[in-house]
Parts: sequence; structure tokens; C-alpha cells
Amino acid sequence: MTLARLRLNKNEDRRIRAGHVWVFSNEVNTSVTPLAQFEPGQPVLIEDANGHALGAGYVNPHALICARLVSRHSDHLLDQSLITHRLNVALSLRERLYEAPYYRLVFGDSDGLPGLVVDRYGELVVAQITTAGMERLKPEIAAALQKVVHPSALLFRNDSASRELEGLPRYVETAFGEVPESVMLEEHGVRFAVSPQTGQKTGWFYDQRPNRMRLRHYVKELKVLDVFSYLGAWGIQAAAAGAESVLCIESSQRAAEAIRANAELNGVGARVSTLRADAFEALRDLRSARERFDVVVLDPPAFIKRKKDVREGTQAYQRVNQMAMQVLAKDGVLVSCSCSYHMQRDALVSVLLRTGHHLDRFLEIVEEGHQGPDHPVHPAIPETSYLKCFFARVLPG
Amino acid sequence: MTLARLRLNKNEDRRIRAGHVWVFSNEVNTSVTPLAQFEPGQPVLIEDANGHALGAGYVNPHALICARLVSRHSDHLLDQSLITHRLNVALSLRERLYEAPYYRLVFGDSDGLPGLVVDRYGELVVAQITTAGMERLKPEIAAALQKVVHPSALLFRNDSASRELEGLPRYVETAFGEVPESVMLEEHGVRFAVSPQTGQKTGWFYDQRPNRMRLRHYVKELKVLDVFSYLGAWGIQAAAAGAESVLCIESSQRAAEAIRANAELNGVGARVSTLRADAFEALRDLRSARERFDVVVLDPPAFIKRKKDVREGTQAYQRVNQMAMQVLAKDGVLVSCSCSYHMQRDALVSVLLRTGHHLDRFLEIVEEGHQGPDHPVHPAIPETSYLKCFFARVLPG
Repeated sequence: MTLARLRLNKNEDRRIRAGHVWVFSNEVNTSVTPLAQFEPGQPVLIEDANGHALGAGYVNPHALICARLVSRHSDHLLDQSLITHRLNVALSLRERLYEAPYYRLVFGDSDGLPGLVVDRYGELVVAQITTAGMERLKPEIAAALQKVVHPSALLFRNDSASRELEGLPRYVETAFGEVPESVMLEEHGVRFAVSPQTGQKTGWFYDQRPNRMRLRHYVKELKVLDVFSYLGAWGIQAAAAGAESVLCIESSQRAAEAIRANAELNGVGARVSTLRADAFEALRDLRSARERFDVVVLDPPAFIKRKKDVREGTQAYQRVNQMAMQVLAKDGVLVSCSCSYHMQRDALVSVLLRTGHHLDRFLEIVEEGHQGPDHPVHPAIPETSYLKCFFARVLPG
Repeated sequence: MTLARLRLNKNEDRRIRAGHVWVFSNEVNTSVTPLAQFEPGQPVLIEDANGHALGAGYVNPHALICARLVSRHSDHLLDQSLITHRLNVALSLRERLYEAPYYRLVFGDSDGLPGLVVDRYGELVVAQITTAGMERLKPEIAAALQKVVHPSALLFRNDSASRELEGLPRYVETAFGEVPESVMLEEHGVRFAVSPQTGQKTGWFYDQRPNRMRLRHYVKELKVLDVFSYLGAWGIQAAAAGAESVLCIESSQRAAEAIRANAELNGVGARVSTLRADAFEALRDLRSARERFDVVVLDPPAFIKRKKDVREGTQAYQRVNQMAMQVLAKDGVLVSCSCSYHMQRDALVSVLLRTGHHLDRFLEIVEEGHQGPDHPVHPAIPETSYLKCFFARVLPG
């Protein structure tokens, strides 16, 4: 089979040769290879301006990232065999690190499978496809997952907003097996019920697991506030680690009920309260009521989804961090996270510094955490390193 | 008592107002306050170009960093009372985090005590003074430490090279009590004998403690190489976590003997070997002999001590990382550290990426570690965040 070719403009091969795998539409020589000639998801041979092959990939004429490299060997097409191989490589890392099959098995580009995310919940596997190139391979993905991890069920949560950038429809679909409404997972000895079909993303955020482990050392016999609580992952963990009391703020009725249920499940219901409210409003009200907490956890949704939102998003981070510091007791600890790639590490440190300065507090950053090892970072793709988690001690100025 | 004043040039108060605490000699208005008029270590009031006080500090006319702020309250002189207060604040963090008194109690600027480092080894406290301002306060430091942590002995390891920048002599001195030749510490259940009087720095590197915990998850039944081994902190930890065999490379005879003794102490002597050799030569020889390891740990001394050494030092990191990858088995894990502040995070990632590219390997960064929480980061002083520790999986390209 002869592959169609995608020709890059002069010098546009440099980033790819340095290890990156994305091609932007303005980098393509469209007089030699017009993008309109390709079907969404079509496999291609990506070549430099002189026609030298860079490797195999797939294309989407409708997307800004119009092609992704899947292999530097031009004859390695992304097919069931290559997907199976990449799944096995990904699995070998996770099996080394985790005793039970509860983790992110595939983290897109970092695991050599651009456009694919796979989370394992025991017997259930939940996949998310975000590109047309991967969407075409849905049967091969299902077959490869079947072969490598033998799940009893596979769910496609193909409902993320980013699919619209690729012109893909949003839907949720059971590929095979019976997908339960709720699955149980354990994190650092604490159990959580998760809803894979209706929860956020695939149902759970494995990326913060090591940072929640850190939290356990900071909460004993103390008052803890978990601001964007979702299922109570931080708050209930804190209660289980000996916190005196935990307040979880969560705006969704459904999630707030799940927090209650998860707290009961772990026998800490008496020390965990929930407040169903918007985070910003709740923080303002707690401050007015002169409530103070020894530890405040801020793990907000991404305030900056696109580069153009940096200014506004940074202000939102600034605002919420300031409100959190204002309900912090003397010598309290602020756990401040950002999952926005565009909120860079140094910028978040600046937010903390400026906020402390504004409130006449002195900050010590005690811990700097990142996404867990089941979300590996591709060294040539800065975007794959997205999660920041600072533990800062906030002292009188 | 009226303090002497140190006047800054116009706009040179900005960094200080943003939270930093260093004054460089070119920032001083030497016509108003000639540096030559000050004694090394003299307490001063630091003021902006208009004579508004920024706070209290101390000065050293002979040093490039000619003054350091110790308090934003102009009447808070650094005396025994303020040192005691800062020690108590520092102690409260460590007591929250550690069950036994084995940690860095004071990390200079980050703990509000610029020029002072204090490590605890149970009953023994080892301090390092690096500025003239702190040197003047040696009796007060000793008295404050006595009061706050009641050690049986205090040793000043005032022999670091950086003292020469301040015109201070290098010496080792027992302040009080009897300093043992060897102290025993425990890290993640593994015991190590440490020599506070003759070892590197204060004898042990607490900063890597959390990263050595990470290592435990990567070594079971595998072959491990610990390249700059010193006392075997990484290698013996790996053996204790179930590594099949560990080779520790160490150039110093004395340290190599300590590795052997520490391995025996933990009952893993049979699985730990030492090779007394220069790290670069040993890596070359191991490669020639076609020796391969599943995990290679590179925790070198700082190759970049000053900014002017960035180019040469980066080449040294590049060289040693390449040599390490060349003795790595298929799908091996490279643990690559740098304690050089001037080797920035992104630059070290680039070194790894370029090296992998050169050897036709594909890298996944699985863990990104930093210095432990007993080495807090001052958010306004980037220099206080110095330790990088990457765990990278090295796959066929």
C-alpha cells in the first residue's frame, strides 16, 4: 500500500526532527500537497521540504494541528499491531509502578498514541479519542485493548469538547461488555465510588494521586477546606489521614451527594461536611463568617484552556488564591494547583508571591508536585507537562 | 541603638519590595553610603533611593551580594531573639513532617536566616555559616539552637568554599558537647553511618530523600548502577528495596569503604558492589565491557557553580547523561539529577532530549522530583529552588 504524502515547508521539519510530533497547518506546503485532498484521519507519510521522509502519521485537514507523527519509521503505520505494541510498552511501566489495575494506561503523545487516552478501573477500561486519526482506528483500539489488558468492558467517553476542534461528534458508547454505573477504586487506602459514564472526563483524576499522598502529611488534627471538591478526592483523603474536620465545597448536586457517600464509605462521614455552592461565592462567605482553616486545597478546573485566555485566566487564579489565603489560619498551608498548561510553573509561583505580598504574608513553598508517573511527560512536547501542585506555608509578613 | 543606613540607587528597591532579600554591590548608592565605611557583617537599615526604610539587614562590603535583608520591620534586628523565633517557625514545619529529628532544620534565606544552614542528626546539630553577618552572630546562633532544640552537641562545619566570597576563613569547630565521629540515621527504613566532621557538607544530603523514596518503586529484581555514589544513599536504598544487584561507583577511598560498611549494616552486602573509580572513566569502561543496567542513577556534584560555567557545565551534564544511557539496558530507567541552580529545569530536559535523539532513543519523563520539604523554596528567590531529579524511561527510537 502506498501512503499519501504530506509535504512540509522549508525548515518546518526542525521541530519534528527535534522530537516533537505535531504539524501545524501553516507548516504544510499546500501547493505540493493541498490539505483539502486528505480525508480526516487519513494515514500519511510526512516529509520535509526536500521530500525526505520524516515518518508515518495521520492528518486532519480541518484541525489546526493538521497532522501527528506516529512513528519515525515510515513503514510503521498506526494499525492494530502498532497500537498493541505501544499498549504493551505503556502497560510495562504501569505494572512496574502499581499493584492493581487502577491508573491511566495511555497518555496520548507521551505513550506514542496521539489522540488517545485510556484509564483503567479494574475490569473496566475507559478510553477517550480526541483526533480523527484515532477515531478511524476505533475497532483496532478496541481489539488491541482486548488483547493486551482483557477487560470485561470498554467504554468510549468520546464527549470531550476538544473533539470539536477536529470536527468530531461528541458521544458516549459502550464498545463491549457491561459498563457499570459505578466502579470502586482505592487510593492510598481510601475507597471512592466513581461514575465512568457520567463523571468528569473518564470519571476520576488519577493525575493528582501522588499529590494527595503528600497532603496526608499536613492535615493531622487540623481543619481542612477542599475548595473544588468534585468527588472529595482530597478532602476525604485528608479526613482518612486524621484531619479534625473537612469542609468540601462543590457546586454540582450529584457530586456533592457522591462526596457524602464516599465519606460514609470510609467511616469519616462525621468529620466531612459538604457545602453545595460556587467556589468563589463560598470562599467569600466563609471569609465574611470569619471561618479559618489550617489547610486549604485549591484544585480548580483549568481556568486557561487556550493561549488567548492567559491574561483573564491568570486573574482568576490570582483571585481564587487570594480568597483561599484569606480563610487560612495563621501558619496555614495552601495547596495550590493548576492543570492549565498555559499557566506555567513560574507564573503560578508569581501569582502566589504577589498574592502573599498583597496580603502582607510571607510564603514558603514546601512541596512542588506534578502529574503522576502514569501521565508521563514527552520531553519534546512541553504541553504534556501540565499539572502543577504547590504546597505553600503562609506565614505572617 | 541607631543603625547605620545603606542607601540603594533609584529603582533598585524593586526586587526587594517584590520579596527578594539580596542587595548587589552595584545597587548601592555609594556616594551617600560608601561600602568601605561598613564592617563585614555589620547590621544596617536598608533604604530606598528616597531614604524610605525597606527593613533591617546586614552588610558585607567585600561580597558581591553586599547586603541581605533579615526583616521588613526596621526595628527587627537579627539578634538571639529573632533567631530563636525563626528557628521555632522552621521547627514547627519539620515536626509536622518528620517523626524523628533527622532533617535540615534551617535552609538559609527560605527560613528567614540568610547565610545559615542547620542539619539535625538526632542529638547532634551541624551548622554551616556562609556570610559575615551570620558569622558575627555565632554565639547567638549557638544559644538559640540550644534553647530551641536542646542538642547534646553543636558542630560548625564552616569550611565551605563559598565562605571565601565573603572573606571568611574556613574551619571546623565544636561549639559545645561531644561530636561523635559517626552518627547513624535512618532513611525509608535503611540505616546509614554518616561522618559529620569529615563528610561532604554536613555529612549527608537530606535534599534527595523523597527522590530516593521514588527509586524504591523502580528497582525490584533489577540491576542498578549508582554512579556518583558517595555513601551509597541511592544504591543501598535500591538494594533494600529488592534490586537484584547494585554497583556503586565512588572515587573516594573513604566513601567507598563507608558504602561497604553501610551495605553490611543493612544486610545487603552480598548484592552491593563498589567500584572505586572516576565516574566518567568507570562509565566508559563499563560500556566497553558491554555491561548493562536496568536502572542508572546519576546524582553528580554541581557541574555549574557559577553562571559563567553554564556552557562548559552543560556539556559535562550532556556527556555524563550520554554515557549513562549507553550502559542502560533496553527499556531502562535513567535517574538524572542536577543540584546546580544554573542548570535550569528546561535545560536539563533539553540535555536528556538531545542525548536520547543522538543515541536514537525515545524518552519518557516519568517523574519530576525536587528538593525535599525540609529545603523550602522562597518564591521570590529562584536560587532557593535548585534540585532537579528526573526519572526517564529510555525506549528504542
